Amino acid sequence: MTDFTSTRKAFHLPEGIIYLDGNSLGPMPVAAAEKVAAMMRDEWAQMLITGWNKAGWYQQPRRVGDRLARLIGARQGEVVMGDTLTIKVFQAISAALRLNPGRRVILSDSGNFPSDLYTAEGLAQATGATLRVVTPDEVEAAIDDSLAVLMLTEVDYRTGRRHDMAALTARAHAAGALTVWDLAHSAGAVDVDLHAADADFAVGCTYKYLNGGPGAPAFIWTHPRHAKAAAPILQGWMGHDAPFAFEPAYRPAGGIERMRVGTPPVIALAALEAALDVWDGVEMADLRAASIALSQRFIAGVEASCPGLILNSPRDPAQRGSQVGFRHPQAYAVMQALIAQGVIGDFRAPDVLRFGFAPLYNSAEDVDQAVQILARILQTGSWDRPHFHEKAAVT
Amino acid sequence: MTDFTSTRKAFHLPEGIIYLDGNSLGPMPVAAAEKVAAMMRDEWAQMLITGWNKAGWYQQPRRVGDRLARLIGARQGEVVMGDTLTIKVFQAISAALRLNPGRRVILSDSGNFPSDLYTAEGLAQATGATLRVVTPDEVEAAIDDSLAVLMLTEVDYRTGRRHDMAALTARAHAAGALTVWDLAHSAGAVDVDLHAADADFAVGCTYKYLNGGPGAPAFIWTHPRHAKAAAPILQGWMGHDAPFAFEPAYRPAGGIERMRVGTPPVIALAALEAALDVWDGVEMADLRAASIALSQRFIAGVEASCPGLILNSPRDPAQRGSQVGFRHPQAYAVMQALIAQGVIGDFRAPDVLRFGFAPLYNSAEDVDQAVQILARILQTGSWDRPHFHEKAAVT
Repeated sequence: MTDFTSTRKAFHLPEGIIYLDGNSLGPMPVAAAEKVAAMMRDEWAQMLITGWNKAGWYQQPRRVGDRLARLIGARQGEVVMGDTLTIKVFQAISAALRLNPGRRVILSDSGNFPSDLYTAEGLAQATGATLRVVTPDEVEAAIDDSLAVLMLTEVDYRTGRRHDMAALTARAHAAGALTVWDLAHSAGAVDVDLHAADADFAVGCTYKYLNGGPGAPAFIWTHPRHAKAAAPILQGWMGHDAPFAFEPAYRPAGGIERMRVGTPPVIALAALEAALDVWDGVEMADLRAASIALSQRFIAGVEASCPGLILNSPRDPAQRGSQVGFRHPQAYAVMQALIAQGVIGDFRAPDVLRFGFAPLYNSAEDVDQAVQILARILQTGSWDRPHFHEKAAVT
Repeated sequence: MTDFTSTRKAFHLPEGIIYLDGNSLGPMPVAAAEKVAAMMRDEWAQMLITGWNKAGWYQQPRRVGDRLARLIGARQGEVVMGDTLTIKVFQAISAALRLNPGRRVILSDSGNFPSDLYTAEGLAQATGATLRVVTPDEVEAAIDDSLAVLMLTEVDYRTGRRHDMAALTARAHAAGALTVWDLAHSAGAVDVDLHAADADFAVGCTYKYLNGGPGAPAFIWTHPRHAKAAAPILQGWMGHDAPFAFEPAYRPAGGIERMRVGTPPVIALAALEAALDVWDGVEMADLRAASIALSQRFIAGVEASCPGLILNSPRDPAQRGSQVGFRHPQAYAVMQALIAQGVIGDFRAPDVLRFGFAPLYNSAEDVDQAVQILARILQTGSWDRPHFHEKAAVT
């Protein structure tokens, strides 16, 4: 049984803050500071260039990928770290398109994160493919024999709606298409099982529920049936079978390492390793149960005490990730008022208050307090002050 | 006049080490440890998600780019940080190809870094372009009216040979082609002047002469005449004109920020900022003069005392970057013997001993001592021991 009292102590949470925004940026693991300091002091400063061998920097993207694999139902040797999620989406779609050369249609939905749609559109324009975007509800019916790739984010960043990965993958396979799953709001948030779902490619970021730090590196997974055939457009030296032979022609590595591109971000990976230390004692089934308990408690509390808010997430927890949205016509100002009182969630245009629940550090007391504060703000109308309406550069 | 005695003190250099491998990985600036620790402690841990506004993380890729601009002859607002060099090469070539739609040929040379050739080849295959690779000497003659893009690394990673950026760019423009310059071995090493050379695109890494740390982020520069028209294939949300509006369609930012892709690597950028603090007092003309003095001194010393070594770099310093190579039939073992005695350079297949000179921390005494130690190793044949022949994973 996972001990969430002890995982909570593993994070630095500022005094007086209830942090319900781990779905944007996870808090800092206490051990990350020393882990990064040690990497800089004992590895970079002391070993200099020899750190690539002595400290194992070169193998680090695979080593960290192996540690993360268990959390998403992947196996050893199937996950590699690097770049950003958008780059990994590009690699996965481009590889999937090439594995399905007779077809040119990429299907996605309007609940996908915009960057996924932007990069798919850019790739489609450059390679003569077509991106079709339907609503999340229309996805299943839109899967047909023209489809090369189905590319979806499992958990909707606005609503928390969770797609049925296994069912949609089966449907896509039956139609002769491959699947690319973005796990940005799934990894560390829900019980992902890529092998059980029989997915083809998966990608994700590590700065949300995995707590790797702002701009932490992304990950990519390829089903082993594709690992030796996948040929993404981005060909970099770290994905070469012999990077240090400096051969003139590209020869991709035998497995997932062909998804590497350039020099790995060693300092950032050190921070992520400290974050993964916390995950080592966590069972995903326990985490999922705790996450559902927190979000159900939040919904019940808000609906009992905040009559002006409308649930913007599926009511059935099986169809939801680890976040809950509520709509309010002045959601931006309400969120600013909440933040001013120490409850950090975020705002998503046009009118959504978004709250993420991370059992690693969020407790039932956090939820109850957040509900109380939110209810008081709405009852008193204290959100309606000019400074709560001023928009910051990044919202 | 730059004070190189004070810049030397700004780096952590292990006792007894003469470090002539800053062209692979620069040493750690002393201030980087505290800069990164402060970013983690005061920003990530305390501000959490609000750091994007409060600490200016969102603007950081431009802010850091502005600090770097002076070192490469670029102006404010023209440089942005992110990703890895290979990704930036891909963006620059893809943007250049689109600006020259009637042509499909990318020209490069065999002295280019392999990853640049791999990524150009990948891009060419995917988009129906063609990559032509000639020897460095043949480049000028190979520029013809079929050419869309000339893509070169200014300073050859093996030999240190420096292309004439202005002359080749003029030649390319006369033939109707655009240029992409990789400054991996130029930025912080030689007096680059992108505007004087009238280049079109430039890219580079920051973990070599700029000392940003292993896997530090790359940079990209676009000449202002292209900034509003350049349309690289990689379309990410951070390159959108309004990233946080989450619009369904991509609308590129007005200037260099369209070259951003995903979430910036905030921790790594903090380390790089500490490295750029050291550069603030450095005049590139002084640095170039000091670099030439060091490399000339090294060549003279080696040729006087190491008869078995053959210079593998241009003798004329005007045609050379900040590194010098020497050939030896057992270069790998010789380099291992040197490293064992505290002189760190590196080996490049098949037979090159490579030494980089960074006036920020390398002195004339370093050069003299390195020459002495190298001469003794060669005279005594002490390199010819079994353990010096054992190849590590990364060489």
